Amino acid sequence: MKRLQVVKAGGTLLEDPATRQEFLKRFRQIEGPKILVHGGGRSATALAEKLGLKVTLIEGRRVTDSNMLDVALMTYAGRLNKTLVAELQALNCNAVGLSGADGNAVQAVKRPVKEIDYGWVGDITTVNAALFDTFSQAGLVPVCCALTHDGNGQLLNTNADTLAASIAHSLSANYKVELSYCFEKPGVLIDVNDPTTLVEKMDRKRFEEMKTQNQIVAGMIPKLTHCFEALEKGVQSVRVGSMELLNTRCPHTQILK
Amino acid sequence: MKRLQVVKAGGTLLEDPATRQEFLKRFRQIEGPKILVHGGGRSATALAEKLGLKVTLIEGRRVTDSNMLDVALMTYAGRLNKTLVAELQALNCNAVGLSGADGNAVQAVKRPVKEIDYGWVGDITTVNAALFDTFSQAGLVPVCCALTHDGNGQLLNTNADTLAASIAHSLSANYKVELSYCFEKPGVLIDVNDPTTLVEKMDRKRFEEMKTQNQIVAGMIPKLTHCFEALEKGVQSVRVGSMELLNTRCPHTQILK
Repeated sequence: MKRLQVVKAGGTLLEDPATRQEFLKRFRQIEGPKILVHGGGRSATALAEKLGLKVTLIEGRRVTDSNMLDVALMTYAGRLNKTLVAELQALNCNAVGLSGADGNAVQAVKRPVKEIDYGWVGDITTVNAALFDTFSQAGLVPVCCALTHDGNGQLLNTNADTLAASIAHSLSANYKVELSYCFEKPGVLIDVNDPTTLVEKMDRKRFEEMKTQNQIVAGMIPKLTHCFEALEKGVQSVRVGSMELLNTRCPHTQILK
Repeated sequence: MKRLQVVKAGGTLLEDPATRQEFLKRFRQIEGPKILVHGGGRSATALAEKLGLKVTLIEGRRVTDSNMLDVALMTYAGRLNKTLVAELQALNCNAVGLSGADGNAVQAVKRPVKEIDYGWVGDITTVNAALFDTFSQAGLVPVCCALTHDGNGQLLNTNADTLAASIAHSLSANYKVELSYCFEKPGVLIDVNDPTTLVEKMDRKRFEEMKTQNQIVAGMIPKLTHCFEALEKGVQSVRVGSMELLNTRCPHTQILK
């Protein structure tokens, strides 16, 4: 089976132009078919504040009313996605920006309201593997922002970590998929401020231990949960770490079944 | 040769949700390959005002500084483009949103500064006909917003009328292209407030006469100039009128060589 790399760029990697340029150069160098997935939470928060909108996060998840969905569309699908695509084109990487609505790439359902009403937030139901195949065969590199649609005309805000994992496991029937979560740290750290406390191998047992000891908190819990699920659903390899892991042998966290 | 329809939606057609829905239903009913081109000037102006930015138009053309380019990216490529794509998907039309950077669809150069500095405004140099062909063969319907790129990572604001004409004539080597400019009026009117003064046939001679008599002014002058150029460059048919012209025999302005 052919290899395919799915790379999620998170944290602050895409904000500062120089760091973004370094990341995109590393992404561009990956051989064979590849897909970039990005969020953009920080720039959405900045725009929301400029527009006088209240930002509500619950356990790192954004509550999305209609105004906040507009902000997500404007920042993720608009400014950031197009900036990434234009900068990749300048590096001779034939990128195409996609939301989940484009080519019906990723469908979702609005999250049911239980204790918390997250608003226009989508839980992914279907990834259009055939579309990604068409793009890959045409030499096009999808750059996916974290927005999906419900098939009835409603766009939905979706966590970018979840989106990357869903795309990765949906394509693993036809490709040997490697999923990399890149951010500003070298991987999962026992002490978040000390890079020497890197956890190089992470299995379910270690994950549960670290959760119990509050060494893994907030957004890292769902991120790692997705990592394990992706492996169980057929993704070949899942790694968490700095952008260096895309092209060099460097310390990172390897997720193990 | 196969037919291909290029439709530019302008004016107020895409703003009010009910009108937009009617337009999209008509667009969706067009048989065979088709491309939608849209601007979004009014919503860009509204966002700019909310953000306290000064909007400058010269002869209907937007002066685009860095802040205004951000606004264009957010409104044209973000909110409006994704809304159109999601709503077309709900109508079973497999739309994919594109800026000129996506798949290197449309390249441009920054307009040289002469008497007026338009800022980050692009003059189109190349339309990637092969990309549109790939999309058409995959059954994907491009929805193009009026942004281009320079190939060096810079996005550029581009007039949507110009973009539609450029795409239409660039594809006319391989398709019998029909170009339709749809807006809220039935076509070119001698008296802009009186629909009974519709000009049903417009050739260069009539155009020059009407310009001399100030019956055609502002944004309509470049629009019609593009229409004539498109015909001269091989586009089969060019029409200006209401959205009804997409599916019904109705009064409109037919442009003649």
